[in-house]
Amino acid sequence: MKVFIVFAHPEPQSLNGSLLRTTVEELEAQGHEVKVSDLYAMQWKAQVDRADFPHFPAESRMRVAYASKDGYETKTLTDDVKAEQEKIVWADTIIFQFPIWWNTMPAILKGWFERVYALGFAYGIGEHSDKHWGDRYGEGIGLGKRSMLSLTIGGWPQHYSARGIGGPIDDVLYPITHGLLYYIGMEVLPPFIVWKSDWLDDKGFQTAADELRGRLRTLSTTKHIDFRKQNGGDYEIPTLTLKPGLEDPSTAGFSIHSRKAEVNGTASSHK
Amino acid sequence: MKVFIVFAHPEPQSLNGSLLRTTVEELEAQGHEVKVSDLYAMQWKAQVDRADFPHFPAESRMRVAYASKDGYETKTLTDDVKAEQEKIVWADTIIFQFPIWWNTMPAILKGWFERVYALGFAYGIGEHSDKHWGDRYGEGIGLGKRSMLSLTIGGWPQHYSARGIGGPIDDVLYPITHGLLYYIGMEVLPPFIVWKSDWLDDKGFQTAADELRGRLRTLSTTKHIDFRKQNGGDYEIPTLTLKPGLEDPSTAGFSIHSRKAEVNGTASSHK
Repeated sequence: MKVFIVFAHPEPQSLNGSLLRTTVEELEAQGHEVKVSDLYAMQWKAQVDRADFPHFPAESRMRVAYASKDGYETKTLTDDVKAEQEKIVWADTIIFQFPIWWNTMPAILKGWFERVYALGFAYGIGEHSDKHWGDRYGEGIGLGKRSMLSLTIGGWPQHYSARGIGGPIDDVLYPITHGLLYYIGMEVLPPFIVWKSDWLDDKGFQTAADELRGRLRTLSTTKHIDFRKQNGGDYEIPTLTLKPGLEDPSTAGFSIHSRKAEVNGTASSHK
Repeated sequence: MKVFIVFAHPEPQSLNGSLLRTTVEELEAQGHEVKVSDLYAMQWKAQVDRADFPHFPAESRMRVAYASKDGYETKTLTDDVKAEQEKIVWADTIIFQFPIWWNTMPAILKGWFERVYALGFAYGIGEHSDKHWGDRYGEGIGLGKRSMLSLTIGGWPQHYSARGIGGPIDDVLYPITHGLLYYIGMEVLPPFIVWKSDWLDDKGFQTAADELRGRLRTLSTTKHIDFRKQNGGDYEIPTLTLKPGLEDPSTAGFSIHSRKAEVNGTASSHK
């Protein structure tokens, strides 16, 4: 396999740094090709701004999405962004290793998506009609690729359980798993999560590293989250609402956009 | 009132820029004091890293949360971070104006929270016992303050409705409204949202600006989202799970952490 790892933590000696090294070692031991983008070490520019579009006229009002489309089509995006896009195209598996900070990814990784997911590359592609609303949510440049989040969370599993104050972890991650990974067509594996990360001792780390190695050995066979394809017949187009008759009509929220067995499956990972 | 506005968009001529100017003009016309942090104009450093903690020994493993606690307690955080903390303390109302990009805030604003919400300032404060799990979710430095998100979204309201593919907008915003604003004790008003932002014409903008002015004139009287207090008796401590008997036991997801009438109320804003 060709595995691309995107890593976002400022401290190489951190738990996340150790999990990254565990991942690279295990994958290379299996004979896979591995590329790593260590965003902090690369001094990745975290925010999207005018400097991302050197081709864009300085005096014009900049609409970010359209500037990115122009930059992508004219091949004038910056070299750091082009390199990341090439790694996405190269990979058949993409792993994201990062800590959950304030219920989502670190800013530097959010900025990676903002800059790399250019219009015309990651979205705004494919037919737009009353049957097909663009190649996204199950279709796109990620089709045929697999992806997995490998995370650390300071909180307890209970805090992110069905009735936990943070909300169910699958819901917390939905804007990432569904809104960014499945969005470009990738299959999304259940996340690997190390909980209570600030309290992990050496024994706890060894247990977590062993579990992670197990997940890495089954990357190609683990059942992915069964999100519903946008253009697969389950949604009204263009309102993109789930059709009547699918799921309990009284149920709202993120969980109706995947088949239930899978949602429960992912919610129980590594507790 | 003392109103602090945090603004995150790279283009002053953008819709977000126009909404910011509308907000400042309306608030000043009402006689309020206004401070604005225009993150892009300030060249705000978007990512938290070692440079945020000049007091921290260069050779030591940096644990971000504890480095921020040390920096806060020794008053050695950087001046830009200290200035933002002072604005939070100064304000009685905080408004965040930004575009929803990839289902959440821009990276530069995420980095604002990562850097400004230091341990000891925004969290990790108050008693930790079997009755009180820190001053957070309804208690903290934000107590007595109000907050509101003012947003633009490229998508349609239907895409973020109860059965829309993006998930209900209240759920999409929950990690921000509940996880960041209510987290420090602020009351959170229903968000103001301009939908289909890429298709807004002049007439649409005037309508949106009028609605926004209406929201700004009722900042002190609008009913806030009725999130449940962490230490108010509704949760088991320390698992922070909603107690049996509250909400339908078959209901999971973010919505159980506020009283239902309010959730429906916010979901219908500006459609």
